[in-house]
Amino acid sequence: MLKLYDCTTAPSPRRARMLLSEKGIEYENIQINLKTGEQMGQAFRAINPNCTVPALVTENGDVLTENAEITAFLEAAYPEKPMLGTTPIEKALIAKWNWRVEFNGLAAIASALRNSSPAMKDRALPGPRNVKQIPELAQRGLDRIAWFFEDLDAQLQDNSYVAGDNYSVADITATITVDFARWVKVYPLESQSALLEWHERMKARPSYTA
Amino acid sequence: MLKLYDCTTAPSPRRARMLLSEKGIEYENIQINLKTGEQMGQAFRAINPNCTVPALVTENGDVLTENAEITAFLEAAYPEKPMLGTTPIEKALIAKWNWRVEFNGLAAIASALRNSSPAMKDRALPGPRNVKQIPELAQRGLDRIAWFFEDLDAQLQDNSYVAGDNYSVADITATITVDFARWVKVYPLESQSALLEWHERMKARPSYTA
Repeated sequence: MLKLYDCTTAPSPRRARMLLSEKGIEYENIQINLKTGEQMGQAFRAINPNCTVPALVTENGDVLTENAEITAFLEAAYPEKPMLGTTPIEKALIAKWNWRVEFNGLAAIASALRNSSPAMKDRALPGPRNVKQIPELAQRGLDRIAWFFEDLDAQLQDNSYVAGDNYSVADITATITVDFARWVKVYPLESQSALLEWHERMKARPSYTA
Repeated sequence: MLKLYDCTTAPSPRRARMLLSEKGIEYENIQINLKTGEQMGQAFRAINPNCTVPALVTENGDVLTENAEITAFLEAAYPEKPMLGTTPIEKALIAKWNWRVEFNGLAAIASALRNSSPAMKDRALPGPRNVKQIPELAQRGLDRIAWFFEDLDAQLQDNSYVAGDNYSVADITATITVDFARWVKVYPLESQSALLEWHERMKARPSYTA
């Protein structure tokens, strides 16, 4: 059975959890306590030297550590309920929007949080190396989230889901982005009604609380 | 026939060009002059409102504007000579390394360049919105490129190609990353012999000068 090293409170492993849930794949869940720094300890470093969750261990013992990697693996190994599209243009749109959500949304929030939170001093980037905070970058991150919400709302005015007519991995990434933005006190505007309506639909899916 | 809006001197559209070359796909090439700001003008904005190259126009008239999108489309529409792997674990490794090269390599160089170059004042991020430079972020970018070269050299000590035994899109992204790093005067160290040897092999491929 697949094993997922996870931390329920963190946004990044939640991407893997939601994907597993949407695809209906069973797995064993192992919690790593990010608050006590368990991810930096010897035991977890032996599993993932990059010291990050999620880490998905396959039945062959391969350890997959990036969400891009986990997604590509699960889509190929468990092709039912495709999350990356079926036709070339669907695949293109999903890749595009997932990339945009990741770079313009998720990365912007991470940079706003990691460059301002006192708890993340010298941890401005994930991974094994220490990186000093840049307060100005936190502000740029906040601006970028607001722009991203604007763009996502515009996209959802014309599309039921983030990448078109069907639910996809881009909806997973975007759901987590909207929820993660609360950590830096950024919320969709009341005027962004397409974004708000889509978010309500996402909350109603079983994967939301997976 | 496919049409690629391109700028030969820029690293981002080079990713699309190299991919088209490796897959042996014919296309029409249209140059957009980034030096004169042609990408911000009305004519190009009508094609790609995000004001970036590459932009690939499909035979159906769809306009694909992100490299992730272009790659997903070409791999699905022209499946010969797969660049994203064939087995689940190959697909996973290629997605992982392409993502790492993109986030830890390419994005680090872009941030070093865009946050320091006088020509890019207020253009610290690509896209239609102006963003102020953060000089400290340029320095962080330089540190990150050095770390990335360290990690890539370690990976290439054990693998012929960036993501394993076969050439893939991760090699394209990494080739462009190594070449782009020169723009900010960062080069692989002489001691990074696996990285240097791999780069020489990449230069010998026809796609290198596509």
